[in-house]
Amino acid sequence: MKKNETIYERYRQLIASGAIAGGERLPSVREAAAETATSVNTILNAYERLADEGWIRAKERSGYFARARARLENAAPAIPERFVSSARETGERLDMVFERLTRTDSSLAVAAPGTDLFPADRLEQAFGRLRRSWIEYAQAAGDPGFRKRIALASEETDGPTDAEDIVVTNGATEALSVALRTFVRPGDAVVLESPTYFNYFRQLAPFGAEIVEVPVGPDGMDLDMLEREIDSRKIRAIVAQPNVQNPSGVTMSDGAKARLAALAESRNIILIQDDVYGDLAFGPRRARNLSAFSGYSGIVLVSSYSKSIGPGLRIGWIRSPEYAERLAEEKLSASFESCRAAQFALSGFVATAAHRRHLGAMRRELEIRVDDHIALLSDLLPEGSSLRRPSGGCLLWIALPVGTDATAVFERSARKGLIAAPGEIFSSNPFFTNYLRINAGWKLSADRAKALSCLKEAFA
Amino acid sequence: MKKNETIYERYRQLIASGAIAGGERLPSVREAAAETATSVNTILNAYERLADEGWIRAKERSGYFARARARLENAAPAIPERFVSSARETGERLDMVFERLTRTDSSLAVAAPGTDLFPADRLEQAFGRLRRSWIEYAQAAGDPGFRKRIALASEETDGPTDAEDIVVTNGATEALSVALRTFVRPGDAVVLESPTYFNYFRQLAPFGAEIVEVPVGPDGMDLDMLEREIDSRKIRAIVAQPNVQNPSGVTMSDGAKARLAALAESRNIILIQDDVYGDLAFGPRRARNLSAFSGYSGIVLVSSYSKSIGPGLRIGWIRSPEYAERLAEEKLSASFESCRAAQFALSGFVATAAHRRHLGAMRRELEIRVDDHIALLSDLLPEGSSLRRPSGGCLLWIALPVGTDATAVFERSARKGLIAAPGEIFSSNPFFTNYLRINAGWKLSADRAKALSCLKEAFA
Repeated sequence: MKKNETIYERYRQLIASGAIAGGERLPSVREAAAETATSVNTILNAYERLADEGWIRAKERSGYFARARARLENAAPAIPERFVSSARETGERLDMVFERLTRTDSSLAVAAPGTDLFPADRLEQAFGRLRRSWIEYAQAAGDPGFRKRIALASEETDGPTDAEDIVVTNGATEALSVALRTFVRPGDAVVLESPTYFNYFRQLAPFGAEIVEVPVGPDGMDLDMLEREIDSRKIRAIVAQPNVQNPSGVTMSDGAKARLAALAESRNIILIQDDVYGDLAFGPRRARNLSAFSGYSGIVLVSSYSKSIGPGLRIGWIRSPEYAERLAEEKLSASFESCRAAQFALSGFVATAAHRRHLGAMRRELEIRVDDHIALLSDLLPEGSSLRRPSGGCLLWIALPVGTDATAVFERSARKGLIAAPGEIFSSNPFFTNYLRINAGWKLSADRAKALSCLKEAFA
Repeated sequence: MKKNETIYERYRQLIASGAIAGGERLPSVREAAAETATSVNTILNAYERLADEGWIRAKERSGYFARARARLENAAPAIPERFVSSARETGERLDMVFERLTRTDSSLAVAAPGTDLFPADRLEQAFGRLRRSWIEYAQAAGDPGFRKRIALASEETDGPTDAEDIVVTNGATEALSVALRTFVRPGDAVVLESPTYFNYFRQLAPFGAEIVEVPVGPDGMDLDMLEREIDSRKIRAIVAQPNVQNPSGVTMSDGAKARLAALAESRNIILIQDDVYGDLAFGPRRARNLSAFSGYSGIVLVSSYSKSIGPGLRIGWIRSPEYAERLAEEKLSASFESCRAAQFALSGFVATAAHRRHLGAMRRELEIRVDDHIALLSDLLPEGSSLRRPSGGCLLWIALPVGTDATAVFERSARKGLIAAPGEIFSSNPFFTNYLRINAGWKLSADRAKALSCLKEAFA
């Protein structure tokens, strides 16, 4: 074994066994080099590999720290069977839980980062400098200058992007409902990931669509199963979140993205990529979108600034070089145009150096918060719980021990004012009845840690 | 004949004959009393009757002025036959004209007042004072505090109004599309006024709805004809604008409003009142809404601040004591919530004394602009043209001489950059092919008067 492998292996075991606890500082590179009688470079190599694999984390100017992951991450969440269901029935079944989720503003259940992470001052200054530009009617597709800013912001991950291909919407929710109304007709079959964002079921309900759920594994949607599904029936559309999937937190590999696009193209299936968390993928480079791997004209991107700049702006967009005109017509019928005041305020910010700096800082801070929450939950959750560290964003998808009734946990903790999202709403089927989704996007202050500790009682 | 009637009749004829030109000042009350050897009160009575009937206009502190109306208003626009059509086909037929209307920003075609009339400074100040309140997610139905402001603003015309009955939307366009999706199923028959706002046809197209057009006369929708229609078929919904109808400018009398509500109630038909121009009805008291005349639970109000505070805010609402919850669910699927930044900026303005003052000043100024445009058009339009003076708002609905091809006029004037809305798009049927709708909501500056004079050439 090479020296740096020996050192890697030693620390890995110390962390996995809990001998080095989550949050504990590792020896500095210099100290470790002296201690093991190797070079600084050897230690650096070992530490970098440990960091790449998620065992430790580098904090700027303060050294390397073990990540709290041992107990929760040693078991991967289960992969459900595939199942076909009626969107209408599912929509109705979920109404009760759903209503309680949306009528409270508990920070544990909301799927957005802590509000302290948004560039509020900058946007409020921009709102104060609108100079009447927000008064006149514009195009239903959105202000041309703002669409250009969205296109510029997209080019890092998607290559050259045309402002004409973009339709501005009232958040990603309207982006998806406009796309569904454009492409889906009553009785069509639509593929969703399993688990997936619960509002999809509600949005599909009016179409009387047939929902085909395909499980999400460590590399995203199970593409072998997807292939069997599209071989066995006519599928109209696939809705997928290849980057930082909600709730699982999984980001597909580049190879899986390319294969997903190729599968959709092979059967001429509309492939709707929901990328609301793409800007919040951890790491130095932003996760790339499906269109970066395929020229397939049926790829339709929906996204939003709600998770990265501010939910209350309600500004999202659809990008489709092929169908932009039809989508703009549907948007016109749905709600004419989106708030121009917000479009103008955002125009001065999106695709600037300040925007890039904001996203970089937000990703770094979210990663710390997510790790801090995982460390805390390691102590709170019952033996046998597991999760996968998310690839970005702010959501933790927690498998409680098999047989646990997560909805009962939800009910009990809700009575204490602590609302996490119960797993049952993330599927048409009872695959995730032992899961909870928790928002880890807030600073883990002493108060928040104390509030979270109420969860422990909810398992009693 | 009583003395004040003699005086009334004398001035009426002088104005109708053109002996007193539009815009010309009448003798002061004192002068007229001296001249006719009657009392000041007698003159005042006569002048008030002339003002009530629209022959003259009182300008604060400057006296009474004749209105320019003689030539254009002596013939009332024709009333079309009723006709049933397919919303889908109509939607497609109108696409071409519609696209050109929405892709230009000609001030003649847009259906909103001149942008100088909106309270821009005040709103921009409010945007600059948001204090982060716009960041967090709220309820899909809208911010509770803002809904309370809408309810307060409604009480003047509608009596006690509950904030819980209001769902905030992305403009009246989304309000109507959410209402249609809540109530209308494929194949249902829907009554529209004829002529009516063209976007309704597009919005109804996806439902494959059957459209029943009922003509608009001097007192709004022809209620005898409506009664025959609802006796002869199953009608699901009526969409009507009883206040300042677009494009005709007609406001229904209180009696007609009561009868319309009673007719809808008698057959359990959903009665959707679109009130986007209600705040802009001329006169000292705001026009009242249908719900002021009926307790029928099937009355659903849709409205907007786009015509009175600023189109680019995209804030409208639906009010329904009976169906608010179902409508909020549909809004959740459509686009989650509406721009909170705009809701918060508006919260500080709506239902304040400043808001009431703004509406009062805006109505008075719009009335002057409308009259100025009518005076100018009297000289520009070909012999045989006619219009009814609108009861509010900023739109003139002009009948060109029978046989005139208004779409050809539209095409010719469009080449000069002057886009008025051609009559054909305001109906599923060819009832209004000789009509033009013109925006008279801008100050009639020398430049605008000159631009409008290009219209004359378009009739050549």
